Amino acid sequence: MDTQSMLMSHPSVQGRPSDAIVNCIEQCADCAATCIQCADACLAEDMVADLRRCISLDLDCADICTATGRIASRHAGADARVLHLALQACAEICRSCAEECERHAGMHEHCRICAEACRACLRSCEEAMERLPGLQ
Amino acid sequence: MDTQSMLMSHPSVQGRPSDAIVNCIEQCADCAATCIQCADACLAEDMVADLRRCISLDLDCADICTATGRIASRHAGADARVLHLALQACAEICRSCAEECERHAGMHEHCRICAEACRACLRSCEEAMERLPGLQ
Amino acid sequence: MDTQSMLMSHPSVQGRPSDAIVNCIEQCADCAATCIQCADACLAEDMVADLRRCISLDLDCADICTATGRIASRHAGADARVLHLALQACAEICRSCAEECERHAGMHEHCRICAEACRACLRSCEEAMERLPGLQ
Amino acid sequence: MDTQSMLMSHPSVQGRPSDAIVNCIEQCADCAATCIQCADACLAEDMVADLRRCISLDLDCADICTATGRIASRHAGADARVLHLALQACAEICRSCAEECERHAGMHEHCRICAEACRACLRSCEEAMERLPGLQ
Repeated sequence: MDTQSMLMSHPSVQGRPSDAIVNCIEQCADCAATCIQCADACLAEDMVADLRRCISLDLDCADICTATGRIASRHAGADARVLHLALQACAEICRSCAEECERHAGMHEHCRICAEACRACLRSCEEAMERLPGLQ
Repeated sequence: MDTQSMLMSHPSVQGRPSDAIVNCIEQCADCAATCIQCADACLAEDMVADLRRCISLDLDCADICTATGRIASRHAGADARVLHLALQACAEICRSCAEECERHAGMHEHCRICAEACRACLRSCEEAMERLPGLQ
Repeated sequence: MDTQSMLMSHPSVQGRPSDAIVNCIEQCADCAATCIQCADACLAEDMVADLRRCISLDLDCADICTATGRIASRHAGADARVLHLALQACAEICRSCAEECERHAGMHEHCRICAEACRACLRSCEEAMERLPGLQ
Repeated sequence: MDTQSMLMSHPSVQGRPSDAIVNCIEQCADCAATCIQCADACLAEDMVADLRRCISLDLDCADICTATGRIASRHAGADARVLHLALQACAEICRSCAEECERHAGMHEHCRICAEACRACLRSCEEAMERLPGLQ
């Protein structure tokens, strides 16, 4: 994924795109894919009944990360307030999902990796909210 | 779409599901589909260059409505704070998209219908935020 | 959802839109939402371990139905061959998901309703493939 | 994105996951994100009226790639025939989108990069269809 080159060739992005938005778009894509895989791996575990909340949060997280990555990619008619609220919702579900996955990270490697992806995405959303002009 | 019957048969929904959540799920699905159609109709208009912001907001709105409808449907491991933030982001994009569509509702019937779908979805998100226990 | 009015106001749709495509778009939205709800209801059942395949097919079905409904909505630059293949994949997952849900329709009302939504969506995809000019 | 490690820790994946499926999942995520960015960059170009078909195919491609990557990630209740049809639809839209983007790759760097992402995803879908047991 070469988000930086894509944004550099976007007519509405003047000069070098913000590292924060580039990173956020890529972390959202990564986290969405990882959460889908974690949900499916949890579903296949013997102890699936104990992993219901993890599966549900994984699916919520994948859905918001997908939407947020798409919204963060749009500069042609961007609405800063909408992006800010999407980033806020995304950061919150990443935190919830990371906390849940961390509870069984010692037992399930997929939850350990997924928690890391959620933490990285959470940080990238927070940085995007802090750094982007007009987003606050 | 028979969301009420689906939720009544959900093991985690005790008794009759909240009308607010049922309506919100259905309005999100309706608004997402309408926004996808409005974006494509705008793209086909002669004056497409004047409709860039409308297309972009339509696509943002479709993506958040899809994610929010999915999150509102999940009760197996629900996280009220995540749902609340998703509803907030959804309400905001519905408001932005409705305002933009209303600017050319007199000229484009698809924008008039889309603005109505966005307003209905906005109201349903606000009602869901007001009525649901634990969402505030 | 007033798909017919939306398509009638679309600059690329000449005259009255095909009933088959209107119905297909609406059934895809309905089936996607119903499958998301069925997956979550299955996840909350005591016998979740026996419902793994149902949950997985529900999620697949929701994802393809969402994509297919969006593609069927786009007329601005439509590629008939792509739509045909999407409809084919959508019909197949609707059939698989309906068959799986029917296995426990007697036990779980959400699976009974979901099977019906999948069957209706399957029929609408088949009709769209049969009726649309240039789709074969 | 560490899809290989995620799949290695999935209870239903015996031993080392297929390189073809790992690559396909990652290319689908990459192509979906790139297509969303290309659609938005095209929308912001002065010559947007000439890029309608490109925007529409970009959006179709993003939607199928997202769905296909999710379906390819699910092994808990996998239906090989559904995955095969999704891969077929995905390969076809990637080919259409690549051909369209290549028409203006000399003028728009975002279209050049997007065409490459689509070609890579097309190859990964074809390899997944060829290599995976039970997929034919």
